[in-house]
Amino acid sequence: MIIVLRPNSTDAQIDHVLERIAELGLKPHLSKGEQRTIIGVIGDENKLQAEPLSAIPGVEQVLPILKPFKLASREFHKQDTVVMVGKVRVGGGAMAMIAGPCAVESWAIVDEIAGRVKTAGANILRGGAFKPRTSPYSFQGLGEEGLKILKDVGAKHGMPTVTEVMDPRQVPLVDRYADMFQVGARNMQNFDLLKEVGQTKKPVLLKRGMSATVKDMLMSAEYVLAEGNPNLILCERGVRSFEDSTRNMLDMSAVPNVKGMSHLDLIPSMACAAVAAGADGVHIEVHSCPEKALSDGPQALLPNQYADLMDRIRKIAEVVGKTL
Amino acid sequence: MIIVLRPNSTDAQIDHVLERIAELGLKPHLSKGEQRTIIGVIGDENKLQAEPLSAIPGVEQVLPILKPFKLASREFHKQDTVVMVGKVRVGGGAMAMIAGPCAVESWAIVDEIAGRVKTAGANILRGGAFKPRTSPYSFQGLGEEGLKILKDVGAKHGMPTVTEVMDPRQVPLVDRYADMFQVGARNMQNFDLLKEVGQTKKPVLLKRGMSATVKDMLMSAEYVLAEGNPNLILCERGVRSFEDSTRNMLDMSAVPNVKGMSHLDLIPSMACAAVAAGADGVHIEVHSCPEKALSDGPQALLPNQYADLMDRIRKIAEVVGKTL
Amino acid sequence: MIIVLRPNSTDAQIDHVLERIAELGLKPHLSKGEQRTIIGVIGDENKLQAEPLSAIPGVEQVLPILKPFKLASREFHKQDTVVMVGKVRVGGGAMAMIAGPCAVESWAIVDEIAGRVKTAGANILRGGAFKPRTSPYSFQGLGEEGLKILKDVGAKHGMPTVTEVMDPRQVPLVDRYADMFQVGARNMQNFDLLKEVGQTKKPVLLKRGMSATVKDMLMSAEYVLAEGNPNLILCERGVRSFEDSTRNMLDMSAVPNVKGMSHLDLIPSMACAAVAAGADGVHIEVHSCPEKALSDGPQALLPNQYADLMDRIRKIAEVVGKTL
Amino acid sequence: MIIVLRPNSTDAQIDHVLERIAELGLKPHLSKGEQRTIIGVIGDENKLQAEPLSAIPGVEQVLPILKPFKLASREFHKQDTVVMVGKVRVGGGAMAMIAGPCAVESWAIVDEIAGRVKTAGANILRGGAFKPRTSPYSFQGLGEEGLKILKDVGAKHGMPTVTEVMDPRQVPLVDRYADMFQVGARNMQNFDLLKEVGQTKKPVLLKRGMSATVKDMLMSAEYVLAEGNPNLILCERGVRSFEDSTRNMLDMSAVPNVKGMSHLDLIPSMACAAVAAGADGVHIEVHSCPEKALSDGPQALLPNQYADLMDRIRKIAEVVGKTL
Repeated sequence: MIIVLRPNSTDAQIDHVLERIAELGLKPHLSKGEQRTIIGVIGDENKLQAEPLSAIPGVEQVLPILKPFKLASREFHKQDTVVMVGKVRVGGGAMAMIAGPCAVESWAIVDEIAGRVKTAGANILRGGAFKPRTSPYSFQGLGEEGLKILKDVGAKHGMPTVTEVMDPRQVPLVDRYADMFQVGARNMQNFDLLKEVGQTKKPVLLKRGMSATVKDMLMSAEYVLAEGNPNLILCERGVRSFEDSTRNMLDMSAVPNVKGMSHLDLIPSMACAAVAAGADGVHIEVHSCPEKALSDGPQALLPNQYADLMDRIRKIAEVVGKTL
Repeated sequence: MIIVLRPNSTDAQIDHVLERIAELGLKPHLSKGEQRTIIGVIGDENKLQAEPLSAIPGVEQVLPILKPFKLASREFHKQDTVVMVGKVRVGGGAMAMIAGPCAVESWAIVDEIAGRVKTAGANILRGGAFKPRTSPYSFQGLGEEGLKILKDVGAKHGMPTVTEVMDPRQVPLVDRYADMFQVGARNMQNFDLLKEVGQTKKPVLLKRGMSATVKDMLMSAEYVLAEGNPNLILCERGVRSFEDSTRNMLDMSAVPNVKGMSHLDLIPSMACAAVAAGADGVHIEVHSCPEKALSDGPQALLPNQYADLMDRIRKIAEVVGKTL
Repeated sequence: MIIVLRPNSTDAQIDHVLERIAELGLKPHLSKGEQRTIIGVIGDENKLQAEPLSAIPGVEQVLPILKPFKLASREFHKQDTVVMVGKVRVGGGAMAMIAGPCAVESWAIVDEIAGRVKTAGANILRGGAFKPRTSPYSFQGLGEEGLKILKDVGAKHGMPTVTEVMDPRQVPLVDRYADMFQVGARNMQNFDLLKEVGQTKKPVLLKRGMSATVKDMLMSAEYVLAEGNPNLILCERGVRSFEDSTRNMLDMSAVPNVKGMSHLDLIPSMACAAVAAGADGVHIEVHSCPEKALSDGPQALLPNQYADLMDRIRKIAEVVGKTL
Repeated sequence: MIIVLRPNSTDAQIDHVLERIAELGLKPHLSKGEQRTIIGVIGDENKLQAEPLSAIPGVEQVLPILKPFKLASREFHKQDTVVMVGKVRVGGGAMAMIAGPCAVESWAIVDEIAGRVKTAGANILRGGAFKPRTSPYSFQGLGEEGLKILKDVGAKHGMPTVTEVMDPRQVPLVDRYADMFQVGARNMQNFDLLKEVGQTKKPVLLKRGMSATVKDMLMSAEYVLAEGNPNLILCERGVRSFEDSTRNMLDMSAVPNVKGMSHLDLIPSMACAAVAAGADGVHIEVHSCPEKALSDGPQALLPNQYADLMDRIRKIAEVVGKTL
């Protein structure tokens, strides 16, 4: 952690910051620059992140070096996570094709839809029994009756099921019927609910909150993981934006970002996504030595990275009926 | 256009609105409902959109029925646009693979990069000679010298070129050297610049502004088209958002939205994009009769639409090394 | 409600829409314009808002005429709401000055702070016993022990208390100790929690969600009101934005918007707020006939509205040490 | 500047970073922590900010310590700026009350409005002769004729004038007629226009871009200042947001932020603004020792800061007809 002091901070203020750090059992390292004095702190940054150091007089800003999540980090868990939903494997190259009605309305409707999506290739059945509706006057779901229908239809078609849980009190009930809990966008930071599903061993599908950053989503994941449940699947479902031609803006970059991929993985994945979405071309900056580029080096690909990307784009373009 | 009156609007206010509409040579149609009185207006909506009707006392809201752009609309121009950039065809199944350095720095660097991207499959060469930099102290581009280098290298490798124009005064100069103008995100609503490039016949690559809606972008397109230049390519480059793990949030939904596709084209294109971006699954609502669904019908796919989508997803998953 | 049909909708599609409306017991009114056919629907719009009409083939868009909330609307409840928090009156000219520590840490600390803020003029004491923290490793609050301290200190200083409730299971416990429930921003759409506090008669301080629109907040208010609890105070606490120099962007316009004030009340209230915030001037459009202005009429004040505003600004400028 | 290396960075990579820094004539300072190696760099940070250091292999992130603007910073210019617009003083306690029609439509209309706003207390007259309209079919302004009318009416009423300039080619023309240039939100990053008005000595009213951060706005200010024109007034006019009940969200916190005030000035100024905007109360965290608070210390006021604030709030409440 780096603590930057105000240009006019006094010696007494600096001493006070050094004392506070020492009190926490950590080692400060003072460095006086031409325009700012900074203090580097070596030791357990988690301890420091919880401390209100920016409230100390004379402190201009506090720059964390590490991410605030731990169990959810790529450093802690280097391999890709594989989650078993019933008998369906998700991750490590195997895909979760979740489909079904928004709400469970009746046995007959869910059964018809389940048959159709199963035939098409879906492997997990969804359907809401408890529905978070913005209006109190809208249909709120069938409750336990809906859970029964979903479980029954899932069993008939050989599909594990996922359904939303909205209230910590519903967790035991939903646990009896479903193969995976869904925590919806509006509850992404309902921490009591996260703790409750974290105490089961059942998979959790955690949807991104409408204005949650990727970091916020990983912090919510941390709540589930910290309770001992490692069976977590994160779901990007779009975020709030100023754009009014779609209800939510799907943040495709969340996919590589959540996976802890580097910035250089981001450009190719977005380019492939754009072609798959129907774009008629892609515009990419390429530089043979990005670190010496006179402008915007960090966002340029190297020529060989570009060539690899073009191979992938060529194949995706073909799938969507286009040619390079 | 629909004019909704306040619940407590007086007869005199209603009469005044009707008179204003008649003055404009349009026909009002009054309809008194249980809770609101509304006035439908038949005639040229463009005339009305320019009028400050919501400033009339007693008016609660004004709801336009039509889009405010005309030449840029799918209704006006039903076929997909095909633009020729030099000898390269863009659109109608042919893709623009634009690549090159951010800024033109020297002949040697541009030449090396051009050779590499051409080999990889790029067909249009990019490079900035005039650079919009947030800091006045950053490298501002080589100007005309840069334009010469870009043109010369493009000719050597048989690639047409695109470069940014930032100032209406630069249009004739850039026109002499480049095969396509780029109007950057910061200038998307620089209307004098749009008019100026609209008066040439040269293709224009118009980048989406950082906080421009799709509608705003199409209105800017309208400026170019209204001047008589139909050679327009729109470029989604990401928008400002609260997310801080990427500099911009790429709004993939802009691709189908700009193409004037219906809502039901949006879901499959986003699902394909997500798989291409590396997602380990997709979660989709399916209903056999969306218009009767008890919740969220409008965002559900029909079972046969889902089956078609799964065919496409299967192929894209294969390209990125995954299996369904 | 207005249903706009696609330009190429067929007669069969139109008939189908008309039938669906009739099935719901409502009266459709068909109107064929030059460029669009529209259907106005007269009757209970709430019924229609719950229906997935935009999922019907041939429908381009559905424009609601009424707001989706009812009990929370100014039309339903014309007077300003006055809420009693313990013996403190809030609303109708009386202000809630809520102050206290973020979390209840100990009796001594809360007591010291309470004494100081009471002397300064605060009339409601706040302090968290259950804390929603983004990290599971941060201090989560003292729980019931904290509630006891807050109640005890409040009683000592003669101040009613407000504290956050995060989980429906905590409602009875918090109800025993506090004079007002706080529902935090992260739980603004925790509908089960809203229902639970709605079933008490105790005042609820509902904080705006980080990406909630004013309409969303009023819909959440509707959940509390619909359960029979009219004692609701709404709290603007800032929303997520792209701006990174503040943690949240305080949406001052929410104040007049939530109060159901017209657009013309918005400009003066924002101008006064800007001066109070320290601005060195204000820039306002004024027009003697906004409804005939050639541009931006709806956002101009009339000259006499401007004069009234200037009187208020003059007084506020004086309070902050400035002169006009 | 602090350079943070990836956890798995190699010695060769670290050496390479050190070499690059030395090449730039700066002094690196290596520090190996338990979880990360970091490099502090002492010297002219401006040099480094222009360098694409994050493109170097092994670098995880680059943390700047200083702000990227210089002339616009409070450190460079400690006193409040005072700008003379014609004979009207703005800043240092004197307020700019700018008013007038959106567009100049005719002599008679501008004259009537000017007379009224002058009487009400306005001291600068506004009116657009060149109008940035989202639609090419909307009224685009009277051009030079409009400038003449504005100047003439301003002279008659003894008011200096401000009008928008959209195109660098219009700068000499507008300079002849107006007392202050307005650069609109859509042109906030039209760098050629900024340079052009920067080369005059005439005051510039720079409006914040729709998605510009405060830092972006100050960087645009830097363009004007760097050309030698210190007569700059910044104007917050609202930013794009997800909220749809207002066209723009007025970012009141920009006022103290732009003024380079500390975080602790932000809370009181927002609280005063809220009361001026019509809020029925304010909710503020107070702690007797924020730096030791167990949660959210940095956003709490000290008791004496709270008492000072309450004095100001009491007076503003009175102005808007409320009592504490």
